[in-house]
Amino acid sequence: MSLYQATASAPVNIACIKYWGKRDTKLILPTNSSLSVTLDQDYLKSTTTSRADPSFEKDQLWLNGSEDEIKPGSRLETCIKEMKRLRKQEVEDKDPSAPKLSTMHVRIASYNNFPTAAGLASSASGFAALVSSLAALYALPVSPSTLSLIARQGSGSACRSLFGGFVAWEMGTKADGSDSLAVEVAPQSHWPSLHAIICVVNDAKKGTSSTSGMQRTVETSPLLQHRIKHVVPQRMADISKAILQRDFDSFARITMQDSNQFHAVALDTDPPIFYMNDVSKAIVALVTEYNRIAIEKTGKRKAAYTYDAGPNAVIYVEQENAKEIVDMILQYFPDAAANFKDVFGLYANDAKKGAVIPGFNEAVAHKWEQGVKSIIHTKIGDGPRTLGESESLLGANGMPKTLA
Amino acid sequence: MSLYQATASAPVNIACIKYWGKRDTKLILPTNSSLSVTLDQDYLKSTTTSRADPSFEKDQLWLNGSEDEIKPGSRLETCIKEMKRLRKQEVEDKDPSAPKLSTMHVRIASYNNFPTAAGLASSASGFAALVSSLAALYALPVSPSTLSLIARQGSGSACRSLFGGFVAWEMGTKADGSDSLAVEVAPQSHWPSLHAIICVVNDAKKGTSSTSGMQRTVETSPLLQHRIKHVVPQRMADISKAILQRDFDSFARITMQDSNQFHAVALDTDPPIFYMNDVSKAIVALVTEYNRIAIEKTGKRKAAYTYDAGPNAVIYVEQENAKEIVDMILQYFPDAAANFKDVFGLYANDAKKGAVIPGFNEAVAHKWEQGVKSIIHTKIGDGPRTLGESESLLGANGMPKTLA
Repeated sequence: MSLYQATASAPVNIACIKYWGKRDTKLILPTNSSLSVTLDQDYLKSTTTSRADPSFEKDQLWLNGSEDEIKPGSRLETCIKEMKRLRKQEVEDKDPSAPKLSTMHVRIASYNNFPTAAGLASSASGFAALVSSLAALYALPVSPSTLSLIARQGSGSACRSLFGGFVAWEMGTKADGSDSLAVEVAPQSHWPSLHAIICVVNDAKKGTSSTSGMQRTVETSPLLQHRIKHVVPQRMADISKAILQRDFDSFARITMQDSNQFHAVALDTDPPIFYMNDVSKAIVALVTEYNRIAIEKTGKRKAAYTYDAGPNAVIYVEQENAKEIVDMILQYFPDAAANFKDVFGLYANDAKKGAVIPGFNEAVAHKWEQGVKSIIHTKIGDGPRTLGESESLLGANGMPKTLA
Repeated sequence: MSLYQATASAPVNIACIKYWGKRDTKLILPTNSSLSVTLDQDYLKSTTTSRADPSFEKDQLWLNGSEDEIKPGSRLETCIKEMKRLRKQEVEDKDPSAPKLSTMHVRIASYNNFPTAAGLASSASGFAALVSSLAALYALPVSPSTLSLIARQGSGSACRSLFGGFVAWEMGTKADGSDSLAVEVAPQSHWPSLHAIICVVNDAKKGTSSTSGMQRTVETSPLLQHRIKHVVPQRMADISKAILQRDFDSFARITMQDSNQFHAVALDTDPPIFYMNDVSKAIVALVTEYNRIAIEKTGKRKAAYTYDAGPNAVIYVEQENAKEIVDMILQYFPDAAANFKDVFGLYANDAKKGAVIPGFNEAVAHKWEQGVKSIIHTKIGDGPRTLGESESLLGANGMPKTLA
């Protein structure tokens, strides 16, 4: 008897044009389009193994080794149901000899390799890996955009993790959500020198969840409507063009403006939502000063910060400038050196020591103790990968393997 | 020979609908109307003595005992010139026997009684006191609204310090600014129980000046235009109505929403401007939690925070609830007790100790050491006052007196 099983991994994505607000909370249809960069899954990824077996008595899922209940009506249940529906419609109905996997229960084991307490959202990579592993298990002859329609219903931004490189989530206009999907703007290979420096920031308390926060913004922020209608459409067009032209300066400008505008509409919410803290703001000040010097010299920006629903900074930079950014962060947050894995060999055998570029006004921020917990240096990456049998997270006994 | 001299004092005002953006930087014409509460000048005020004398060889001004140069083309020079013009037009041209004070130079001494390093803007009360003292010196038969046209050219928000109580600065539409003036919405006596608790917040660094910051917002924030055209006009109408009805709940809601929106458009500026820090945000969380309980019990808010171009919080509250607010601030910022002058006798002979109301979720913020430097408890106040000879800041020798 065959073992029906597949394993896939999926990457994290970080938005440049932010998703904030749903027009349909059940189908997860956004109030505006968004655009992201997919990060290299060699460093940050979710891996998921899905197995179908006639002996399974119910659908079950384990996340990082602990069982997560699949509640009726939950987003998780919706995704699994939709994938089974696609299996039946696209495979079994067309080929009567295909095994009836859509009628079997599944066991799913998922694992995030993120550094402990990194405070990085895992729902995007998690749902993308789930959908990708089920798509492989079911041998679905469908495009990543079609899969993105289902991942979107798990977690909105998950739809963007179905592609590598630069990805747009087109908001769509249909009530059933069938045109609210992810498309590739440019593949990883278009701009392989794009790096990301993630500064994991210490935070005293957990902020408002993005799910509840964004709907409060939709309900109470007068500014959000203007953003949706009059700002985002132009920014989507402008940043897509900047990406296609590898115009880092425009890419950086729009990315920073849109990060700031997302946090502005969060603040315009009643009661207000704050995600950036004083450390986040210090990093904004550092990148602004770094760019000031770059603009003075060449007329162009060299770095772009962006902040999601938390205090962590992601700084996009061309590979050749990555060391200057890490140097700068270490100068102001020296404690971070202990938690910085220098995967690109910036420091070779040198001490991981801070520095700023010539002309830098060091007074734009003060030095912090324990402001930045860790630095993750990564780069633009590819989309979901189907992995071999050896990578399976489920053991022969149908239970999750214990990972070291 | 007569001594031509007058002394006046003027209050601080704190905006509920914020002024942020000029449509004319020379005339100081705003992009939107604003509305403020005048604070009691028994606690916070600027006092100014103006003297005209044929022996003076130039106009001179001393601020807190140090001479401030009156630069050609400066806002200070404009105000003095405009006041002399009014003297000539309204008095000397109509009454040939009136002394020709408009032709004499003036000496002006001004003094702010603000607690040292309170970080409170003094330009509003300062220019209001300057204009008021010159108006008294020149015996101008003009209304406070007319004087507000001149104070506005010294510092925009100064025009609102020409009245007590609740004051609107109507943006006007004329290019010459002749209809951009302050009007009284309601006098102090309309709502005498309105108190203000000012939390002076420690700040590591000086933020962007409001003069340069607001123009950067005008030039770069896409959201500001929406605020100006579509949000502020309705809020001006709504908060005026709330004030006239002494509807604290609506007054509080609109005040907090507009403070947040001002900081939102500052954040939407490129590069972004941040005025609130983590302490400011902790106070927002405390007031939000305090109001949550009030709303649960009575459906109405009991406190309203507002933040200007800095981290200090001003909390409006009805007198009967003032102690609960000070208690709450002292609970989270116990160091502030040492710099809290209990002018309303909230604690009588009791220790100034923190407390929160029943049901308060204490986890909404953590306790801070030295987050709040001092607490100033004050209340709604009256407009500029003309003071007696004994209050003069200029000595018989025509030089500023040394104040203790």
